[in-house]
Amino acid sequence: MAEINAIAQQFVQFYYSTFDSDRSNLSSLYRPGSMLTWEGTPIQSGTLIIEKLTSLPFSKVQHKVETLDAQPSSPTTPSIIVAVTGLLQVDDSPNPLQFSQTFHLIPDGGSYYVQNDVFRLNYGA
Amino acid sequence: MAEINAIAQQFVQFYYSTFDSDRSNLSSLYRPGSMLTWEGTPIQSGTLIIEKLTSLPFSKVQHKVETLDAQPSSPTTPSIIVAVTGLLQVDDSPNPLQFSQTFHLIPDGGSYYVQNDVFRLNYGA
Repeated sequence: MAEINAIAQQFVQFYYSTFDSDRSNLSSLYRPGSMLTWEGTPIQSGTLIIEKLTSLPFSKVQHKVETLDAQPSSPTTPSIIVAVTGLLQVDDSPNPLQFSQTFHLIPDGGSYYVQNDVFRLNYGA
Repeated sequence: MAEINAIAQQFVQFYYSTFDSDRSNLSSLYRPGSMLTWEGTPIQSGTLIIEKLTSLPFSKVQHKVETLDAQPSSPTTPSIIVAVTGLLQVDDSPNPLQFSQTFHLIPDGGSYYVQNDVFRLNYGA
């Protein structure tokens, strides 16, 4: 578990710092079979996922991770489920938005790619 | 995708209605290898998971699902990742709490069990 938590932490740090600086650089994390569900819209393939992420209508964005949980997703493969909640600050909006994101990471060589990615803003009660 | 969404919806409806009426009845959904991370605390095995859920310090509880997203978690196995956000009303507290929950469902015979379960309350900004 210690190793899985370390991998998840490293991934999450890389993911959001890359997202917040230049999200086109996330393309190395996705594969042709990767899936993103963005606010309920399903998108398949790394190319279309990056197209979606880079076309989001904000220029400045900052994620602040509040909780991060990781679990092995399979007894036989060293794949990992990562669940994140946090705050998202967009452009010059004063109020951060609460978000939830779930990743499913699959090992590939010495690294991991994102097989599954689900993103939701939480608007609350 | 239509079938996966239907399975996820059916699962989520069963899960929360069972949780809210008698959560000891969730035991059929977990296996010895199942994992729950409850508010950051990792718990392994169906027996310990049910022990945790039934020992939670509230008697009345009601989940209201706000968003539900499902994806196949593997190109080779018909396993499913289900990401839920919603509101949780506990006992006679007037204010519902926002929660996020991620499930990883594995097929077994004609049914599914929960391999992974991550639960978090979102306290927001």
